[in-house]
Amino acid sequence: MQRTEISELGEFGLIDRLSKQVEHYHKSSVKGIGDDAAILAASELQRVVTTDLLLEGIHFDLRYMPLQHLGYKAVAVNVSDVAAMNAIPTQITVSIGLSNRFSVEAVEALYEGIRAACASYKVDLIGGDTTASAAGLVLSVTAIGEAEADKIATRSGVKKGDIVCVTGDLGAAYMGLQVLEREKQVFLANPDASPEIGNYKYIVQRQLRPEARMDVVHELRELGVVPTAMIDVSDGLASELLHLARQSGMGLQVYEENLPIDKMTYDTAVEFGLDPITCVMNGGEDYELLFTIRQEDHEKVKAHADIHFIGYATELAGQAHLITKGGSVVPLKAQGFNHFKE
Amino acid sequence: MQRTEISELGEFGLIDRLSKQVEHYHKSSVKGIGDDAAILAASELQRVVTTDLLLEGIHFDLRYMPLQHLGYKAVAVNVSDVAAMNAIPTQITVSIGLSNRFSVEAVEALYEGIRAACASYKVDLIGGDTTASAAGLVLSVTAIGEAEADKIATRSGVKKGDIVCVTGDLGAAYMGLQVLEREKQVFLANPDASPEIGNYKYIVQRQLRPEARMDVVHELRELGVVPTAMIDVSDGLASELLHLARQSGMGLQVYEENLPIDKMTYDTAVEFGLDPITCVMNGGEDYELLFTIRQEDHEKVKAHADIHFIGYATELAGQAHLITKGGSVVPLKAQGFNHFKE
Repeated sequence: MQRTEISELGEFGLIDRLSKQVEHYHKSSVKGIGDDAAILAASELQRVVTTDLLLEGIHFDLRYMPLQHLGYKAVAVNVSDVAAMNAIPTQITVSIGLSNRFSVEAVEALYEGIRAACASYKVDLIGGDTTASAAGLVLSVTAIGEAEADKIATRSGVKKGDIVCVTGDLGAAYMGLQVLEREKQVFLANPDASPEIGNYKYIVQRQLRPEARMDVVHELRELGVVPTAMIDVSDGLASELLHLARQSGMGLQVYEENLPIDKMTYDTAVEFGLDPITCVMNGGEDYELLFTIRQEDHEKVKAHADIHFIGYATELAGQAHLITKGGSVVPLKAQGFNHFKE
Repeated sequence: MQRTEISELGEFGLIDRLSKQVEHYHKSSVKGIGDDAAILAASELQRVVTTDLLLEGIHFDLRYMPLQHLGYKAVAVNVSDVAAMNAIPTQITVSIGLSNRFSVEAVEALYEGIRAACASYKVDLIGGDTTASAAGLVLSVTAIGEAEADKIATRSGVKKGDIVCVTGDLGAAYMGLQVLEREKQVFLANPDASPEIGNYKYIVQRQLRPEARMDVVHELRELGVVPTAMIDVSDGLASELLHLARQSGMGLQVYEENLPIDKMTYDTAVEFGLDPITCVMNGGEDYELLFTIRQEDHEKVKAHADIHFIGYATELAGQAHLITKGGSVVPLKAQGFNHFKE
């Protein structure tokens, strides 16, 4: 493998090299990389803005996270926040801090993933900042999106009787992480061991290279459905249900038997001695969409193969409950990942 | 001093505490902190977007940088990029990564500075991300501004004969840094030594708590002058002149005798055995505005006490020259700070 030091190119050389391959998809990107700021066209649409900071050793482990996937994921998790507003992503900025451990080739791998995500979600890379870092890799992404004011879905619009929907399946990214952590231990103990990841491909991919559900945002538009409230599942279903309940001043009730879980997630949870439903409720990083719709909209979406109807809104302001298969009513507590927990 | 661990509050508790004191100045901030993304109103104006990543040990040294000043500076340097587009700043997002070295009180000091800058520049804090960090303090700020399309000044609009202007004085922030570094060495050698910073108050303040020149942006509007090109002086005058020259395909010629330098900067440079003009040309972080105007606009701005006319645009595409007091013509090279230099 070739290794070119970043100091050979310098900051401007690196930026020149990386910004040459950037493509724009939106007319609203009037000016991208190369000035004091990017310029966006005037717009009759509202804009949404979201940002995420990803730090090595906290949010990702480069011992099993390939740089291409990390670049893709950094964009996808921000696009997911735009999706959760029921908006269409249009621009992103990406700032990167690099220790001297990273070569030009490594940065290019990272940007390959960033560009792949930009192409996949049709979002324009319009700026950023590139700097040295004293320790580890730092990634900061800001995403901008747009939507008509009456299409934007916040967390606070749940109404009594609304149907609670979630896309895809849950708990897979969390179980993928468990597999990666186990294999890392095996690998660290014996570098010649061949990692057993092939059998867990789907759940490992859900952890390493998640997708924002822009497909669902576009499909809901085509079906003429605007969610009354929406959030993406990044910290775990229980935590997100409580966000919607609290910010809407409504209650949410979901049924265990309706919760979507992939067979591989279920089997792997059992293999690891974990309760599959706990993984669904509290496993994070699925980046599925959790939203509520009016009952009269159910007809329009009921045939959608990837939208699951898991419960409904009640008047128990700020509370969320799980109704188990046995009929017990379990109050939910947020147990999403807390980086500051001791 | 009280010390509250961040883990006592948790991520959501910390965000709640910090976001309570946030004030909004712009109607365009439809929704701020508290959802998957912030919402900006539709606008007939163009928007500009800029972002900066500030890392401990690279961009700041907490041994002499008080956290309030750091918070203020992080906002000011982004507002400066908005100013350099001749736009008005409206919103910012601030993401912070914190190691467990930082207490809740430390984070509140940082936010005090951020809020002071928001109040000073009338910019709305609409979002961000707060996370643990494995090592040191990470700050990522994105600023958004707005302006009529025909008011925005990029780096590429210089025309032959334009007058080159710069605001304030140059080299002070660089000399302030030299003083701080010297005092740090003294302090590290003998913790009981009293730092000799009082005599250098102005230049130290220029380093620790720089101001974006929004005052000049507003004044140029009142005077009816739109710069043909503009950039802020963050890497040093020589580097910024070359950016304007290269991106405009014009030449720029500046005169040593016209370069603005404060007496304290000059005297301190001499004290440190440095050439004051080198500090002016290559010292960074002044955050003054460097811009070009049409000759017919000179009349409108000539009485402005803080705008200096330092040269003019020639046809020597992409080149910049300094005409010394002795009449020598010195081609300029960018020697701005390069974080990736060995």
